[in-house]
Order: sequence, then structure tokens, then C-alpha cells
Amino acid sequence: MWDKLMQDLDGLYEEMVHIRRYLHQYPELSFHETETAKYIASFYEELGIPYQSNVGGNGVVAKLEGGKPGKTVALRADFDALPIQDAKDAPYKSTVPGVMHACGHDGHTAALLCLAKALIPYKEEIPGTVVFLHQHAEEITPGGAKPMIEAGALDGVDAVFGTHLWINTPVGAVETAPESFFAGADAFEITIQGKGGHGAQPHQTKDAILIGSQLVTSLQQIVSRKIDPLNSAVVTVGTFEAGKAFNVIADTATLKGTVRTFNQEIQETVIQEMEKHIKGACVSHDASYEFYYTRGYPPLVNHPREADLVLNAAANTPGIERAEYVSPVMTGEDFSYYMLERPGAFYFTGAQKEGHVYPHHHPKFDFDERALPLSAKTLFQSYIAYQNQH
Amino acid sequence: MWDKLMQDLDGLYEEMVHIRRYLHQYPELSFHETETAKYIASFYEELGIPYQSNVGGNGVVAKLEGGKPGKTVALRADFDALPIQDAKDAPYKSTVPGVMHACGHDGHTAALLCLAKALIPYKEEIPGTVVFLHQHAEEITPGGAKPMIEAGALDGVDAVFGTHLWINTPVGAVETAPESFFAGADAFEITIQGKGGHGAQPHQTKDAILIGSQLVTSLQQIVSRKIDPLNSAVVTVGTFEAGKAFNVIADTATLKGTVRTFNQEIQETVIQEMEKHIKGACVSHDASYEFYYTRGYPPLVNHPREADLVLNAAANTPGIERAEYVSPVMTGEDFSYYMLERPGAFYFTGAQKEGHVYPHHHPKFDFDERALPLSAKTLFQSYIAYQNQH
Amino acid sequence: MWDKLMQDLDGLYEEMVHIRRYLHQYPELSFHETETAKYIASFYEELGIPYQSNVGGNGVVAKLEGGKPGKTVALRADFDALPIQDAKDAPYKSTVPGVMHACGHDGHTAALLCLAKALIPYKEEIPGTVVFLHQHAEEITPGGAKPMIEAGALDGVDAVFGTHLWINTPVGAVETAPESFFAGADAFEITIQGKGGHGAQPHQTKDAILIGSQLVTSLQQIVSRKIDPLNSAVVTVGTFEAGKAFNVIADTATLKGTVRTFNQEIQETVIQEMEKHIKGACVSHDASYEFYYTRGYPPLVNHPREADLVLNAAANTPGIERAEYVSPVMTGEDFSYYMLERPGAFYFTGAQKEGHVYPHHHPKFDFDERALPLSAKTLFQSYIAYQNQH
Amino acid sequence: MWDKLMQDLDGLYEEMVHIRRYLHQYPELSFHETETAKYIASFYEELGIPYQSNVGGNGVVAKLEGGKPGKTVALRADFDALPIQDAKDAPYKSTVPGVMHACGHDGHTAALLCLAKALIPYKEEIPGTVVFLHQHAEEITPGGAKPMIEAGALDGVDAVFGTHLWINTPVGAVETAPESFFAGADAFEITIQGKGGHGAQPHQTKDAILIGSQLVTSLQQIVSRKIDPLNSAVVTVGTFEAGKAFNVIADTATLKGTVRTFNQEIQETVIQEMEKHIKGACVSHDASYEFYYTRGYPPLVNHPREADLVLNAAANTPGIERAEYVSPVMTGEDFSYYMLERPGAFYFTGAQKEGHVYPHHHPKFDFDERALPLSAKTLFQSYIAYQNQH
Repeated sequence: MWDKLMQDLDGLYEEMVHIRRYLHQYPELSFHETETAKYIASFYEELGIPYQSNVGGNGVVAKLEGGKPGKTVALRADFDALPIQDAKDAPYKSTVPGVMHACGHDGHTAALLCLAKALIPYKEEIPGTVVFLHQHAEEITPGGAKPMIEAGALDGVDAVFGTHLWINTPVGAVETAPESFFAGADAFEITIQGKGGHGAQPHQTKDAILIGSQLVTSLQQIVSRKIDPLNSAVVTVGTFEAGKAFNVIADTATLKGTVRTFNQEIQETVIQEMEKHIKGACVSHDASYEFYYTRGYPPLVNHPREADLVLNAAANTPGIERAEYVSPVMTGEDFSYYMLERPGAFYFTGAQKEGHVYPHHHPKFDFDERALPLSAKTLFQSYIAYQNQH
Repeated sequence: MWDKLMQDLDGLYEEMVHIRRYLHQYPELSFHETETAKYIASFYEELGIPYQSNVGGNGVVAKLEGGKPGKTVALRADFDALPIQDAKDAPYKSTVPGVMHACGHDGHTAALLCLAKALIPYKEEIPGTVVFLHQHAEEITPGGAKPMIEAGALDGVDAVFGTHLWINTPVGAVETAPESFFAGADAFEITIQGKGGHGAQPHQTKDAILIGSQLVTSLQQIVSRKIDPLNSAVVTVGTFEAGKAFNVIADTATLKGTVRTFNQEIQETVIQEMEKHIKGACVSHDASYEFYYTRGYPPLVNHPREADLVLNAAANTPGIERAEYVSPVMTGEDFSYYMLERPGAFYFTGAQKEGHVYPHHHPKFDFDERALPLSAKTLFQSYIAYQNQH
Repeated sequence: MWDKLMQDLDGLYEEMVHIRRYLHQYPELSFHETETAKYIASFYEELGIPYQSNVGGNGVVAKLEGGKPGKTVALRADFDALPIQDAKDAPYKSTVPGVMHACGHDGHTAALLCLAKALIPYKEEIPGTVVFLHQHAEEITPGGAKPMIEAGALDGVDAVFGTHLWINTPVGAVETAPESFFAGADAFEITIQGKGGHGAQPHQTKDAILIGSQLVTSLQQIVSRKIDPLNSAVVTVGTFEAGKAFNVIADTATLKGTVRTFNQEIQETVIQEMEKHIKGACVSHDASYEFYYTRGYPPLVNHPREADLVLNAAANTPGIERAEYVSPVMTGEDFSYYMLERPGAFYFTGAQKEGHVYPHHHPKFDFDERALPLSAKTLFQSYIAYQNQH
Repeated sequence: MWDKLMQDLDGLYEEMVHIRRYLHQYPELSFHETETAKYIASFYEELGIPYQSNVGGNGVVAKLEGGKPGKTVALRADFDALPIQDAKDAPYKSTVPGVMHACGHDGHTAALLCLAKALIPYKEEIPGTVVFLHQHAEEITPGGAKPMIEAGALDGVDAVFGTHLWINTPVGAVETAPESFFAGADAFEITIQGKGGHGAQPHQTKDAILIGSQLVTSLQQIVSRKIDPLNSAVVTVGTFEAGKAFNVIADTATLKGTVRTFNQEIQETVIQEMEKHIKGACVSHDASYEFYYTRGYPPLVNHPREADLVLNAAANTPGIERAEYVSPVMTGEDFSYYMLERPGAFYFTGAQKEGHVYPHHHPKFDFDERALPLSAKTLFQSYIAYQNQH
């Protein structure tokens, strides 16, 4: 029945590319996406689809009520860019110095907008209500999902689906995970306060570099000894700054890092064990410390039923040749907040470019635009599959 | 004036050798030297010099009152042996399985006895009173010096001198130090109480081997960072025992070791820092511990004036070609207790054998017996030098 | 069609219990199970089912050729016991001092024997050939599976299924994993050769305890930094032995431990990284080492199709209320060798006793005997499901 | 005989203060002391004492030939200042922003100049030849002593003496050491080259922060285990810089530090052991490194005979109440180069101010000017004592 719609979406390929490239040339940083939000709003304005702007910030939420009874299901696309200087050689490269759509959010937006446009003629046939969830600020904590939910974006919504154009997955493939899909990504900062002094008089000091170094080696013991080997955790110290002169013993050392986990229990274990190791290292040297731990996005955990439904829906989508479960990824995604509130699932739509592939967040990142209609199609097929199941 | 005595002591060389070899064949372990004590007592009995037995254990104290006024000065010789199997090839090797005079205490005793014998004819010429301090149990803490002092061995004594036949010093040399001469030698035992478990389930355990290992590396930081570089300390973990099966995580780890220092302040610093490091390692892993620290002999600190006097006296002794200050040694000596109570000094009498030298406590240890009269001479010269100075 | 057989198996409950308890009273250690092997052989002798003894050791292989065409499928039960003193209070407790069926292999054997007996009347209806694989020596590497395969036990066999009575799983439940199910379990022994010496003279030594301790802390970095967080590995040092006296620096340190991994690539990574860390610790101290690594059983990796088939077969088995995938376990199982050669799957048959549960290998281990017919039923249902699929 | 000269030097106190305060107001950085050198040269010009400028840089060497036969003995005073902002509240504070005589070299210069002036009337009575060694650039390696020696400053010189006004020693005291007096002070820089990567993907990286941290803890083992406890060494890591972002694993870590030793053998041991530890840490992680070690000034080792002579000379100097040996200091002094070439000794002339004492190199450093004539007197008494002995 939706075969025709699928063809229509193929027919909108040029427009999707046009929108995507336009957004690509005018990227805006997280929490500053005002022009992009206006662009999205005016699009719905023209379509005559009711929408609401400034939802929890720059968020835009549009609703298309179908003619048939059914559930209310949200489809999400994020639209912020990154503080990266575009180094591509392409006519549509960023015109804003130091800002770039290096993650594909421009494509997410273009696909969802064109899906909305494509659905207009089918309005009466559509079961339930399609909610178009245009989210700002996915790249930086605390993210846009949380304030949008707080502003009511999920009111009346039964389920949420979303996809990410994925550079490591070939065009034509869809991948997801039955449960844990993206890690929780937290940040920490540890400051060791020792006691400085002359480099030749260590006995009158508390050597902050030594204490910090002992701590870095000791932190390894959390993952090696305190996490169930069948579970996952990463504790990375990314920066170590201490000392001003080669012949002076440093009084403070500052360590910054990140923690990745897939569930809250493991996250709590890591935090508690970190505090123990920091305290232990300081006790050994009679030093003091400050430990700031910032919980980032929670782990993105799909709902197994809806994840299964996405795979089946994708398998039945024209153009999708492969749909399967894959291992989760250690990076973070604030789609997780929707999953804490509603059933649903997030998935990858393969968008690997031919030739040398630049990863997400790379200054030369680009994706294969043939993935755009595929992402629109699979989102709608997931929508329909959900309606069919309820 | 004492030239004749010096010659007499040379004449007693054969008897010194005889006594030393006799004792060498019948060694007795520390605190079990009953026969040796009887031998010493009967020697004084025959000389007609008054003595007291069982002083603070197996100690023997004899006193020769000189005919001239003067101070009372004790000369000390220890007489216990070691739990070592004699591996020498010599007619006078030990006849007692597993027990051996491997440190030279047999020689100390022989020399002091013959000095007493040699002094008899000069009784009336001697200023002050010579106390012959035959001490048991030097090799094992708590040692014999302390109980002998408590039993009154130093009552009425003004100063104490003693010497050790020293295998690293050539015959004809005398060495001492103006102050710190032997280290304080302490013992410790640390038990880490973690939580054992299956080798494949580390997250349910507190790995005692890991905690103990972290502690061993962390203890190095005491000497490297907490001791004045111009001072000395040694912290050695000598045994590490943990675990019963390769595939089971150990619940306890036991570390035993020794600490060496030259003064009480450094000793206290080491103990305090050790406790911090042990506590820190346990805090890091939420484990508990027991820490037993046994203070051994205190550092042997000579009195500078008397040390100087020994050097000068030795320099004027026939047969002594070199008398000088040397660096202190890290081993322990309970002569230190005498130095805490009275002025005095301890020194080395060179006794290096020609050819391959086996160190003290080696199963093939032996010394050059020509050192015997030299040690007797220098002891008496020190006695006289002290009398002259007061 | 097989409903009647299922009922027959229920009817053999008493005999299963009888056989199991008999074997329980006469346990035999791995590689020494001669009487148990005779018992099994004589059972098939009486049934008139052809069998072969001494297959790759004490192994027994029987074959029941069905009357209908089909595949040849082996069902495996192991039959060795453990060097554990039975501490149960039960009339059927072990009569052999220090030897005990503490893992449930007696139950595996009893269930498979009674399944064979039950199948006799249905011989003509059975598609394909049932191979009864009675394996010796599962508990100790190199195990019995490998030599049995080498002796031809899988010749002509198309697939292999097996089950383990599982104390952590309730009666009525069946659990398996789609792929990795049991870890590879390896052993290692590291000897650090430093240079001993006097506890007060560290500068003349290479402190083996320090080197070993540094190594233990450094080995933690393999799991924390060198293993994909989405994969699993365990590196456990289970014993640390070094030093003979508290005041002597140890010349050697011996570390024994175990490594657990779920695939060969990770296993190889661990081995290579271990060698680097050992070498690095020795380079730091100019010491030498010996590193013996013994590969144990390979990881048991089920074949996804057959694992799925087991779950479905179990779900259709009377008495089974729950059949699902679970996380893999970190212990080892030499059923893995069959999976390297043939398709098939291994699974848990829930056998949890009511009340306090003693884990496998515990001196008071015992299981709920109602699990015996359930294991026989699910083995045969898996057999049939496999036949149906081919 | 020299009592009158001693009184004359007391009489020059005002002039010493005047000169010192003048230099104090116009400090010049090491290797840029051109005006100070001119000031010194014109002083000798006026005195009519022959001198040579630009000796090995800004050095000035003057020679007063005495009327009596004797040895040629150099007396050294350095004259460079430090890059420190003067924070004193005094009329003679530095007029040059960011440059200050914060170590007392102004005083050294004033005293030596006035000694030269005082000696003029006694020219005919003086045995031997007095060499006034005005050295530039003591504060920064490679220092001025070495190029001055290379330029011939010690040609024909038999011995060298020098003193440092010392803020930790009371006025009226003289301190030196029989041999080791100032440490060798070296610098090092270690760069660990690992492999960076995403903070959540440690297994694809070589974590430079972890390698560097392991190295810092492992470097402690040099002092704790590889240096004779009776000797001294310090290994300090003063700066640790690594990583740019909290969520990115660092590819490089840079450690800078200092090493202090009192003799070349220990220095070589430290360097060799450092290289082993660096190499070991990198072997453990398959990383590479660069290790730059810069030998600073060699240890300043007095010649025992001349040190003894300084103490005796000082003891006989009016105004000196205490002259004794003290422990060496861990800082460096390029007077050491003279000691490698000629006999001689360096010593402290007590210059402690009353009230709160600011250490050398402190922005509020100042000394008690009453020490100026004392330093001139003891230098000359040492000169005479040396002449008397030869």
C-alpha cells in the first residue's frame, strides 16, 4: 500500500540533496541554531502542517494528524553542527569559519522535512499521528532532547523512532541493537592538591605529579577488576597537566577524562571506585583532592520489541538489502532521553561514501546522499510497523 | 709504658687461636650459649678475676680493679653463633650440625679473655677498673645487651668500647665512624585482607595480590620522596606470599620486610609514611589490613669524642697501619644500647683473609687470626686513652 | 508424535535417579574413569545397542540407527568427577575419599543412558542415527573431547548437541547463547629472575618482588586499554610467591594465573600484550623472565542456527516453561572442540535445588533430580528439530 | 701580622656596603653583565692593579703580585643577577624591572673589590700572587667558570678559594664540607610517543598518559633501589604535560625534570637506570620515546686538605665565632669546575638577616651586610693559610 509513497520519496531525492546542501553551507553551533530552526519552521508553514517553535530551546515540533485511527509516533531528526573547520573540497562546503555539519545532522533534517512533504497527499490514509521532532543541540551536553521533553514534546506521544546516517555502514544497510546501543558518556576532572617545593628537596613536599601518576595507573584497575567482564566500561584520562618548571616539584596536578558505560549500575560502580582510588592515592601522600564528575547523556537503550520492529520494517523497505543487529557503540546520543520516557528505537542508516572514508567529526567528513531517501523510507516503515502492531 | 703489654699480647697469639678454634668447634645459638658462658666463667675463675655469671641471661661480667685511680671502662665481646651449617674445609670447623660461628664472635671472646690474662701482671699499674663485658645473644633481637644493662652490667661504668673483627677490612687497619655507625634494623609484616573469588569473576572480589603489588610499588616512594636525600633509609619487602591456586583470586597477601635507618626521626617518618601507603592502597580497594612493625636494635651512634679517641689510640698501636673514619653500614648491632647509656665507641678491627673472601654470615666465613692480638691491643689502648683524657 | 516418548522418559525418572546416585557413590577422577566406562558399556550391552569402548581414552560411543532416513546427530554426556571431599549429608554421598561428582556429570550420564533405553521401542520411527557420546575427562585439560574426536568419535556425525545441568537456573528453564557461551580458560606461569641480596643493600640487587609487583599492576592495563570495551577478557594473577626471609631481597618471584577470553583474536592479543608487559618490567630492572602460557579449552561458541533450534525445541518440550538466551559464562568447557568440528549447540538445563544453593565444585554441591528427564527430553527434541530442518 | 689588615677591612665596611648597594640597583642577567664588568674593571684601573677584561665572556681577572715569594692563589667572586622582580622595600632595591641580585653575588663582588683595595698597602709583605677572579654567569648553565678556565683564567694558578654569603647561616659562622659540598644538577626531558585516539576506543591506541604515569611511578625505584643508601640522589619529574581534550586519548606525553647527585658514578647510574625505566615503560606499550639528558654543573667537591685549611683559617679570623663542617646541599655551583682543575675549597660565610629570612632566589631576598668584611677576611686568611702550608 505504501509502495507509491516509497517511490515518491525517491522522487524527492533532489530536494533532499538541495535542502541538505543548503543547511551544510550555513551550519550553526549547538544551542545557537536559530536560523536553522526558522528554516525548518517556514518549511512546515509552507506545507500547512501545524508546528510549534522554540520547544525547549530551538526545537521545532510539527504534527500531521492522519485520517485513520492509530497511535501518535514521533520521528526525530537533530539539526546542530560542530565547532570544526570544514576542510572538504566541495561546492557546498561550510561558509561559516570554524563551524561544520561534520556529523550528518543536516541530512537527518533534510530527510525528515521531505518525508513530511511526501506524506501530505496520503494524509487520509495514514493511521495515527506523525510527530516530526526537530531537535536542536545533540552534540553538547546537556543536549536538546531533555529540555524538549520537559517542554512537552512527548505529550501524547506513544513511541519514538530515530535514525543516524552512519559513515561506517554501507548504503543499503540498516543496523541497530536490541537493547544497549550507545554508551553513556560522562566527563570528570580531578585536581590533586599536594605541596610544591624545590626539586632537590622532595622530603619537604607532596609531589602532585607522582600522586597523579599513581592515580592514573591505579584507575586502570577499575575496568580490569571491578567491572563484570561481560559488561563494558571505559575510564580514560585524556589530559594530565602539572608543574611549571623542570626543577620545581609541582603542587597540583589536573586530570581530565571521560567514562563510558551502558547502564546506570555500572556507571555508579565506576564513580564509586574512582572516588576510592583518588582518595587512596591522596591518603598515601597525605594530599587532598577535588573530584568533579559530570554525568553526560545516559546510555541509549533501545526497547527490544521496537528494535525488532525496526529491523523487520527495514527488511521490507525498497533499497534496504541488509538489516541486522550490531554491537553497540561507545559514543553517546541524547536520543537516550526519549527512550527513558517512551518505547522506541534508534538505528543506523548506512551512508558510507565510496573511496576513502572520513569518520564522523572529521574536517573532511561527508556522506553518500543516496542514503537520504533510505532514511526517510525506513523511518516511515517503522512508523507503520508500530501502528500495525498496536 | 704499655709497650711491654703489647708484646705480651703478641705472645698470647697461640692461646688466642687455641681458644677461638675451640669455641669455633662448639658454637651455640643466641640465648642458648650456656656452655660458652661456663667456659668464659671458668677462665676468669682460673685467673682469679672476680666475675658474675648469668647477667641478664647468659652474660658474664668480670672486673679487674687497677692499682691506680681512674675511670671504670667496659670492653665488650659477644659470644653467640648462628644457625648456619659450616661449609668450611678446616680442622676447627663446627662440630654442631647447623650451628656456626659465622660472624667472628668466637674471636671477640678469645681476644678479650687473653687481654684479661695479659693484664694480671700489670694490675697495679692500671688506672681505673677494666670491666670485661661478655655479652650473649647479639645476633637475634631483642639481643643480650639490653637485658645485661637492665641487670646492672653498666652500673658504675663510665664508658664502653667494643670492636668487631671485620672481613672487609685488611689486617692492620682500624675503622670507625664519628657518629652513626650501624643502622637501626627493624622488621615489619603487612597482611592485606581483600576478598577472594573465582579467577574469572574479578568484579566480585577485592584482589589481594593486586593490592599488595600496588603497595610494594608505592612503598618505594617513601625513600625516593619522603627521606632527606642527605639522610639514609631502606625499606625492603623481602617476602610476598599470596594465593593458593592459579585460577582463584587471593583473599589475603602477606608482605614481610625490613627497614634500616640511622636516626629515630627518620625511623618515625618511615613508619608513618608506611602506614599511609598501606592505608591508601586499602582505601583504593576497600580492603583492610594489619600492620605489625617491630623496632629492632636502635642505630648504633658512636660518641664523637670517644670515636676520635679510638682512632688516635689505634694509630699509636703497634701493628696498626691505618686508622680512619669510614661510611656507616646498614646492618644492626646491639652495642647501640650501650651507646644510649654511656659514652664510648665501636670500631672495626680488620680481619680480611687473603684470597677469596666470604662475607659475614656465609657458610664458608673465616677470618685472619692475626687480627686477634690487634683487637686486644686496640681495645686496651682505647681504655688507656680514655683514662688519660679524664 | 513424540509425546509418548516424553511420557516414557518421565516414567524412567526412578531409574535415572538410581543410576545417578549409584555413579555418585563411586566417582572417578578425570582420565581414571575405568569403572564408570565399564558401567556405561555394559548398559549398552544389555540394551543391545552397538557401542565402542576406549574411544580416545575412556570414552564410550554408542549408535542407534533409526528406521527412517536422516542425519547422524551426536548427543554428549561427560562422566568424570572432581578431587573434592564430599561434604553432603545424603545417603548417596561419595564413598571414595577426596573424590566427588560435584559438577553433575553423574546426572548427564544417567539421563543419556535412560534416553537410549527409552528410544529402543521407537527405533523404526526415528529419523537418522542417534550417537550417544559418553565423554571422559571434561574437568582437566587437555580433556577427553579432543582425543575422542581424534579417535574418530565424530566420523559420519552431522551435528552435536549437549547440555549441562545448571545449578543457577531453576528447574523448568533452558538457557543457551546464540554464539559465545563458555570462555576459553588458559593458564600461565611467570618467573621473574632478578638478583637477590642483603635487605639493606638494594643497590646491589634486582628486587624480584618489586619487579613482580610492578608487573601485576601493569598487567591490569591489558584489559583496561587493549581489549575492545565491547569484548571480554580477564587476566588474573592468582598466586604470587617470592622471598624466603624478611631481611633478604628476593632473587625470584613466581606468578601464576588464568586468562579468560571468548575468541581467539582476543586471546592472542592478551598473550602478546602480556609478553610486552613482562618484558617491559624486566627491561626496567635489567632482569630476565620465563613465561609459560598454556592454552586451555578454546571458547565454546555455539552455532547460531542450532542454538536457535535448541531454544525452539525446548520451548516445545513438556515441562520446560522458559527457554531463552543468556549472557555467556567465563568458565571453560571442552564441548568447544565439537563445535570447532561440527554444527551444534550446548545449553543449560535448569537444576536448581530449593533452599540454599551450593555452586558447582562446592563440597556440598547437589542438584534437583527432577531435571534429569528434562535434560533427556530436550536433548531428543533438539535431535528431532535438527532432523526436521535438514 | 695580618691583624692590621683585618682592621683595615672592617674600616672598608662602608665602602663595601656602598658598592654592594650600587650593584644591587643595577643588576644584569647572566651572560649580559657588561656594565657590571666595566664597573669592576674601572675599579682595578683606579687601584692600579693589572687586570684583563672579557675573559671567557664578561669575566674580569686581576692580579696583585706580592713582594714575597709564594704560590699563586685565586679568590673568586661571581657577579650576575637573576630574572626575578625585586619585591623588597629598601632604598637600594633594583631599578631594573624583572632583574634582581637575589642570591648575593653583588656582595661577593663588593667584598672582593675592597679586599683588593685593602691589600695595596701590604703589597710588599704579601707572599705569592693574589688572583681576583670576577666570574660572570654563575646562575645559568653552561656558566661562566668553564669558559673563563678555557680562556686561561687558571693559568699559573696553584689553588682557588671562594665563598658564598649564606642566608641560612648566622653572621659570624663559616661552614664548608670536607669533600662533596654542592650537588651536580642535571636536567632531562622525556617525550613518550604513543598513539592517540577516541577516548572510548582505548584498544586502538597507545595511551601516552598511562605510559608516562607508569614511568613516573617506576622512576621512583631508582632512588629507592639502585642508589647506595649511604649515597645521595634525587630524581624529580617537575612537569607532566599530555593531552588536549578530556575525551581524546593522548598520543604524546612530555615529562621534564631534574637529577641531583654528588659524584659522577652515581650520576651515571641514574642516567642508565632512567633509560632502562623509560625503555621498559615503552616496551610494555609498544611505544617509542626521546630522552634528552643535559648534564649541568658537576658536583662541587672540595679538596679535603684545603677545606680543612679554610676551617682553621676561619677559626683564627676576628669576628668568626664558629667554623665547622656541615652536610652538603643539593643545589649546584659552577665553582665545581675550578675544583676539577685545581686544589681549593668553597665555603659559606654566614649572612643571615635578623627577623624573617627570605631564602636565596626569593623576591624579598636580602642579607646582613655585616657579613661583607667577614667574607673578605676569611678569603684572605685562607690565602695566607695556603701559602703557609706550601
